[in-house]
Amino acid sequence: MSGTYVHGYRAREHERLQDQAGTLVDLLHADTAYPSGSSVLEAGCGVGAQTVTLARRSPEARFTSVDVSAESVAEAQRRVDGAGLANVELRQADIFDLPFEPASFDHVFVCFVLEHLSRPVEALSLLGGLLRPGGTITVIEGDHGSAYFHPDSPAAHAAIACQIRLQAEAGGDALIGRRLYPLMVEAGFDAVGVSPRMVYVDSSRPDLVDGFTRRTFTAMIEGVREPALAAGLVDPAGFDAGVRALHRTTDADGVFCYTFFKGVATTPSR
Amino acid sequence: MSGTYVHGYRAREHERLQDQAGTLVDLLHADTAYPSGSSVLEAGCGVGAQTVTLARRSPEARFTSVDVSAESVAEAQRRVDGAGLANVELRQADIFDLPFEPASFDHVFVCFVLEHLSRPVEALSLLGGLLRPGGTITVIEGDHGSAYFHPDSPAAHAAIACQIRLQAEAGGDALIGRRLYPLMVEAGFDAVGVSPRMVYVDSSRPDLVDGFTRRTFTAMIEGVREPALAAGLVDPAGFDAGVRALHRTTDADGVFCYTFFKGVATTPSR
Repeated sequence: MSGTYVHGYRAREHERLQDQAGTLVDLLHADTAYPSGSSVLEAGCGVGAQTVTLARRSPEARFTSVDVSAESVAEAQRRVDGAGLANVELRQADIFDLPFEPASFDHVFVCFVLEHLSRPVEALSLLGGLLRPGGTITVIEGDHGSAYFHPDSPAAHAAIACQIRLQAEAGGDALIGRRLYPLMVEAGFDAVGVSPRMVYVDSSRPDLVDGFTRRTFTAMIEGVREPALAAGLVDPAGFDAGVRALHRTTDADGVFCYTFFKGVATTPSR
Repeated sequence: MSGTYVHGYRAREHERLQDQAGTLVDLLHADTAYPSGSSVLEAGCGVGAQTVTLARRSPEARFTSVDVSAESVAEAQRRVDGAGLANVELRQADIFDLPFEPASFDHVFVCFVLEHLSRPVEALSLLGGLLRPGGTITVIEGDHGSAYFHPDSPAAHAAIACQIRLQAEAGGDALIGRRLYPLMVEAGFDAVGVSPRMVYVDSSRPDLVDGFTRRTFTAMIEGVREPALAAGLVDPAGFDAGVRALHRTTDADGVFCYTFFKGVATTPSR
């Protein structure tokens, strides 16, 4: 696996990812539940932000959650232990070289992972090979090109473009959400169905103003300031103006929109 | 009222508006129904694309549908008559100078109108004055800045930007959807609630590929070719490349996203 992460490994990122999972749980996960006794592979669990939610919502299913980073797996283990969950096994493993036999799992779950991979279709195909006939795969990704807001701001779009550019240069795709359908079809899955999960934030929804606009999306953009400046993508004043414009959307008359995409499909025909 | 229409008055536009209403009816209108005996003002009914839907869904309510264009009112009358609807009265009137007494209506409905007005808050305030205490206003608008797609294309975004620019120069705002919440609050309404209505189109939804991506959105952009060229906003090759890129999103691996916004609020405190 190519080392293609723009974010996700810094200490401050842990809190952000936790915030993100906290405010978006229902939007992203309310329609995901696995039957009693089924085995689920969570590929790319990171620090376990989704793992705890998944395992709690399907207490009779058995989860195997893997991540390429031993450090993240250790943090995920602490979270799983802290939540008192007994139905999760954590392992360090590369998504492109997973230590499982073909058709080992009933279901696969992948969330905020493909965006970091230079070969997402290959990853999906490999995961498909681990599914039993009749199994399902669920994929959730964001799309930073889906962000728009009031007041509109070219500076804010330019700051967001820095994150998109850095992720692209690292081999990933911050605009991958909109591509889930063709990616899953190309990987050979059947009955691919993708649904958008739009986060709409105005000041009548203060939890989302703080939890999503400010502490998830804007914090993520703020997090690429140094690499964006180092790469010469923007000057400091321009970037900071963009971040201020994103914060401006959290005022009483501001609005912020962002869309996640969730795809579900069944085991490819073989 | 300033003459601020970029589209809506040409013969070919009638068909497009009808297509739009046909494919989007459930998304936009499923949660709008008016009680028996209630009086509803539809402000800016145009050629009646929404009027027939509204009146059919609330057969026991009485609709007064007005538009500033006598020609549009005549076309709307033909549609209403063709649909055999007896609960609609059509009148030619200016939304800024409506011939009704204060507190004349139980409900007001406004769809795809504010985008054309240079003073949308003033229009909303005037409409609020026509509502009885406890009445509601429903506002639906699109937002052309909410359009994104796969494959992504700078040329397509540039063509869309022509439409946005032309509408702005005519005094309107093609990005008004995202602003519904602050506009309705500023106009003095209570209990303002805005919900996004996202149209997600991939090739598993062929009706939307044809009815929305191709015949509604792309047709609308194609419709501004001549004024965009005349205004020097783009060269012919660039515009045509953008339109081709929009059509490219209707291929089997293409995806198209667009969001409408629907706001509902209650009579302002007076």
